[in-house]
Amino acid sequence: MEDWQEITGGVTAARGYRAAGITAGLKPSGLPDLALILSDVDAIAAGVFTTSHVKAACVDYCRQRLQAKHSARAILCNAGQANAATGSQGVKDTLESADLLAKELGISPEAILLASTGVIGQRIKMDILRSGIPKVVAALSETGSDAAAGAIITTDLVKKSIALETTIGDASGGLRQRPVRIGGIAKGSGMIHPNMATMLAFVTCDAAVSSSLWQQMLTRAADRSFNSITVDGDTSTNDSLIALANGQSRTPAITEMGPEAEKLEAMLTAVCQHLAKAIARDGEGATCLVEVQVSGANDETAARQIAKTIAGSSLVKSAIFGRDPNWGRIAGAAGRAGVPFEQDNLQIKLGDFLLFENGQPLPFDKAAASAYLKQAAAGAYLQKDTVLISVSVGNGHGTGKAWGCDLSYDYVKINAEYTT
Amino acid sequence: MEDWQEITGGVTAARGYRAAGITAGLKPSGLPDLALILSDVDAIAAGVFTTSHVKAACVDYCRQRLQAKHSARAILCNAGQANAATGSQGVKDTLESADLLAKELGISPEAILLASTGVIGQRIKMDILRSGIPKVVAALSETGSDAAAGAIITTDLVKKSIALETTIGDASGGLRQRPVRIGGIAKGSGMIHPNMATMLAFVTCDAAVSSSLWQQMLTRAADRSFNSITVDGDTSTNDSLIALANGQSRTPAITEMGPEAEKLEAMLTAVCQHLAKAIARDGEGATCLVEVQVSGANDETAARQIAKTIAGSSLVKSAIFGRDPNWGRIAGAAGRAGVPFEQDNLQIKLGDFLLFENGQPLPFDKAAASAYLKQAAAGAYLQKDTVLISVSVGNGHGTGKAWGCDLSYDYVKINAEYTT
Repeated sequence: MEDWQEITGGVTAARGYRAAGITAGLKPSGLPDLALILSDVDAIAAGVFTTSHVKAACVDYCRQRLQAKHSARAILCNAGQANAATGSQGVKDTLESADLLAKELGISPEAILLASTGVIGQRIKMDILRSGIPKVVAALSETGSDAAAGAIITTDLVKKSIALETTIGDASGGLRQRPVRIGGIAKGSGMIHPNMATMLAFVTCDAAVSSSLWQQMLTRAADRSFNSITVDGDTSTNDSLIALANGQSRTPAITEMGPEAEKLEAMLTAVCQHLAKAIARDGEGATCLVEVQVSGANDETAARQIAKTIAGSSLVKSAIFGRDPNWGRIAGAAGRAGVPFEQDNLQIKLGDFLLFENGQPLPFDKAAASAYLKQAAAGAYLQKDTVLISVSVGNGHGTGKAWGCDLSYDYVKINAEYTT
Repeated sequence: MEDWQEITGGVTAARGYRAAGITAGLKPSGLPDLALILSDVDAIAAGVFTTSHVKAACVDYCRQRLQAKHSARAILCNAGQANAATGSQGVKDTLESADLLAKELGISPEAILLASTGVIGQRIKMDILRSGIPKVVAALSETGSDAAAGAIITTDLVKKSIALETTIGDASGGLRQRPVRIGGIAKGSGMIHPNMATMLAFVTCDAAVSSSLWQQMLTRAADRSFNSITVDGDTSTNDSLIALANGQSRTPAITEMGPEAEKLEAMLTAVCQHLAKAIARDGEGATCLVEVQVSGANDETAARQIAKTIAGSSLVKSAIFGRDPNWGRIAGAAGRAGVPFEQDNLQIKLGDFLLFENGQPLPFDKAAASAYLKQAAAGAYLQKDTVLISVSVGNGHGTGKAWGCDLSYDYVKINAEYTT
């Protein structure tokens, strides 16, 4: 199924995209804080946004833009001020940002999408943004993805970026096979400073795809990636996932589901999962990535619900931090996920260790299982060392995954010790 | 509304009840571990149990008993082994426990309800239980509530007990007013040792009330108390709330809702809320009790949902531990509770400090607000020093409360450092 390869280039790996990231001066730290992604031509645009009822002006703005028009040219993202809970002035600032960038690029403001991350309740520093926009436009380049990835992060420890390539166009059908690329950058690591929030991901693709299909693919991919990670269960006011597809690969247009569409969606999902896992692994104070795989449920939604409940359980998370192969907490979390199953069908594995079967605990080598947890945490960032929890709840065909991290002293320290 | 007074006596405050708590030897620690509550006559019995799909044998047992017969004479509770995830042998142990106690008391096994708390996956040590049952029966006394309260706790720092008294019977209606009492004991403090779980509460009442009304009252009271507390979001395999009403107050039978029924339900709710708050305050590593009051929602369920989401947010909890008046995290948690509201109607208060109004942050004295959080945490156990978060989301009539505690280093320490 994975007939793609990883390539370099992030959001500028796909044809027809440029990007930039600069230090405009929005962050007090003096670190990069303004990013721009531009497609050379109008791109099909899809988005998935926070479901919170307290949300930033840019989220409402993007939703409205994408409802009116399923295409865009540019994504502008500022870091430093979230422009959430800023009332009508926040809305005006959003509109002015789009107008300023449109003028600078010589395009319509309707072709611009916006994202913000930073302190909730603070308006964007518009004076600084006004002088920053010409600079970020001037900095646009075909190798600008890394700079953009660095300008959207806030409390993240690392930049998050990926690009994959496959081929589209069936030789047997007389169409020439051509490469198609999808790249993405993301930010997010839970919330460190007070009111500092947000998960953002921007994805670029050079396939030609219909707007409704692209949105459907993105929604499903988001469910299987960003919506399946949990650092502390808190959803932000600014969470946004935006994906562009500009057709510059010159591959045949994909307008309905079929083998080519499935291939494209699988690669889009892989890009989103890579970024989502990078966010989970960068969770505040995390020492390891935890992957929970659930099988035997009635459907994918049920399986994912169980997986997310286990990955999000404070008790499971602190047991993993303590290197404790604690099947009881995993069983407890599975049981309270709101998905009915027969207790006697429950099976729990930790790595290769079978801990629980037919609804009852099994004897296992606790020292070896604890050692498995220890070596996972010893792995370097984004190494293969991941704690794997596998749970089966019955004979259904539904499978689902979720990702999280352990709960450490540092999570509490980071989130408690910064006082106003 | 609160026309009752607090009295002593716990579950033996109401007429016609005896209780006992002994050290049978089930706990390795040698602390008390077997409790019994007995009504002199058949009592109307109602129960609310864990919604987890992984549950203890005693939970299935009680559900079946109460479905067949809405009355009981005795509640037996062992601590040390949870008898959850113990398969068919666990079921046999449960039935044998009931038979042994019935024989010792000279009553039907069908009049016996059971509860267990302790290590998941471990059967009750039946040899010890067999020799313990005659001893706990012999220890029954009209002042035995405190001993029973001490024998049901596991990792709790304190025993939890309350009793209230009011009068039932309207003088103007020609009926003599007589005292009615409700008492309760409880255990729970989150989960400390691996697989060590459970919230238990046993309530006794001497009013005469119909079984269907008593069950309705208990279900509502549970929603407004035990189902509105959150220590770490994890629900246990053994959670049980059992309430008996034996009619020994010799007050007129309450068979439908009306002023007398409302009075009884309000007092039952107060008993449950007292015990629930004691559990939240005893949360692992907690330095204070947090009460969240939500108003302006469409209904009570919606208000409570928002209150529970705020009280359960790891970010809000760690901010309170850090004495940080962080309205952004409260707004964020309110927004993601799954209850629609207009952001512009959101108002947030911390104690007497108004932090957020009309969807926007207000200037406030941060040092004073932080000092408010500090003094709350300085309060002794069950003192009045509680952190109060008040949130209004609109003009609806729905109000709801939830209780939790802060998230401290000690929570992680307690839950991580005990390794197998």
